[in-house]
Amino acid sequence: MARWAPDAALRLESAAMALFAERGFTATTVPEIAEAAGLTTRTFFRHFADKRDVLFLRERELPTVVGGLVAVAPPGLDPLALVMSGLETVAAGELQRWRDDIAARRAVVRSEPQLRERERLKSAVLTDAMRDALMESGVTSADAALAASIGSALFDASLEQWLAGPDDVLLVDVLRAMRARLGDLAGR
Amino acid sequence: MARWAPDAALRLESAAMALFAERGFTATTVPEIAEAAGLTTRTFFRHFADKRDVLFLRERELPTVVGGLVAVAPPGLDPLALVMSGLETVAAGELQRWRDDIAARRAVVRSEPQLRERERLKSAVLTDAMRDALMESGVTSADAALAASIGSALFDASLEQWLAGPDDVLLVDVLRAMRARLGDLAGR
Repeated sequence: MARWAPDAALRLESAAMALFAERGFTATTVPEIAEAAGLTTRTFFRHFADKRDVLFLRERELPTVVGGLVAVAPPGLDPLALVMSGLETVAAGELQRWRDDIAARRAVVRSEPQLRERERLKSAVLTDAMRDALMESGVTSADAALAASIGSALFDASLEQWLAGPDDVLLVDVLRAMRARLGDLAGR
Repeated sequence: MARWAPDAALRLESAAMALFAERGFTATTVPEIAEAAGLTTRTFFRHFADKRDVLFLRERELPTVVGGLVAVAPPGLDPLALVMSGLETVAAGELQRWRDDIAARRAVVRSEPQLRERERLKSAVLTDAMRDALMESGVTSADAALAASIGSALFDASLEQWLAGPDDVLLVDVLRAMRARLGDLAGR
């Protein structure tokens, strides 16, 4: 049965998560994941660079999407507001719907130091995408680096708090509260 | 010739940096580093977990030192001020004297994706140490996580800007300017 690519990626992710839960991340192999999804190993590697990558499918497009949002944000906003506008948009969209999936994959990531390194790399890719988008919008490199790093720190802390809390809370509300709290702490 | 430990670590670091510059990080082996330093491989592994670790010697004690400074900071400061007080103290100390060494090792780190992942891990260890110290001082976990992440982002951005700039600038001044700029951007 022919299927379009993103669906295959989601099937592979679903099969992988079931196997990780059953036998652990380390003991699961790529051929086993592909077989459980009814797909080939070749198809697996068309969608993922390696076994670790399966855990980051839901956030894979974030840097591109947020970078794009920052680039088209209304002019006149300061650099931190530009970054927050992009982050709030993604927080209110798919991420919110995917809460349970993200929580499940994060539990696996936290069980393996190697996976945590990959997670940090993903977070750095988001920071870099926001910084580049700000610089393309004419923000100085110093301000762009600062606003992107701060936005990324706020986003990571918000995701963490949101996933640890009750499931009827909106990620975008956590993010806005975190931004407001930063204003209390950092404002002079 | 018997020597005390930190001196051996510095000799190994110096030998390693010369070899990395000459033939590249990947092509250099631990036995070659040990031999160039006039020490054994066994001694190398008493000081470093692996070849990558040599590049992070100058920042190895940072999380412990900053965590300790945050824990003994005067009461009454808000969480971000506590973190900044610890970071400013280390910025004004050995880091300032080690500018050229840190710049040289960072050039190597930036040449290898694997090393950048390790660098991010070190940065996360600093964040965690500050967060834990804040929580031990009675700061709520949400504020501790936020202030530690923001402090870490300010510190990383400051190091980056300081190393890229002229060598007569003080790291602590860059850090304070970055903090002030955050106040402009984040204050409401």
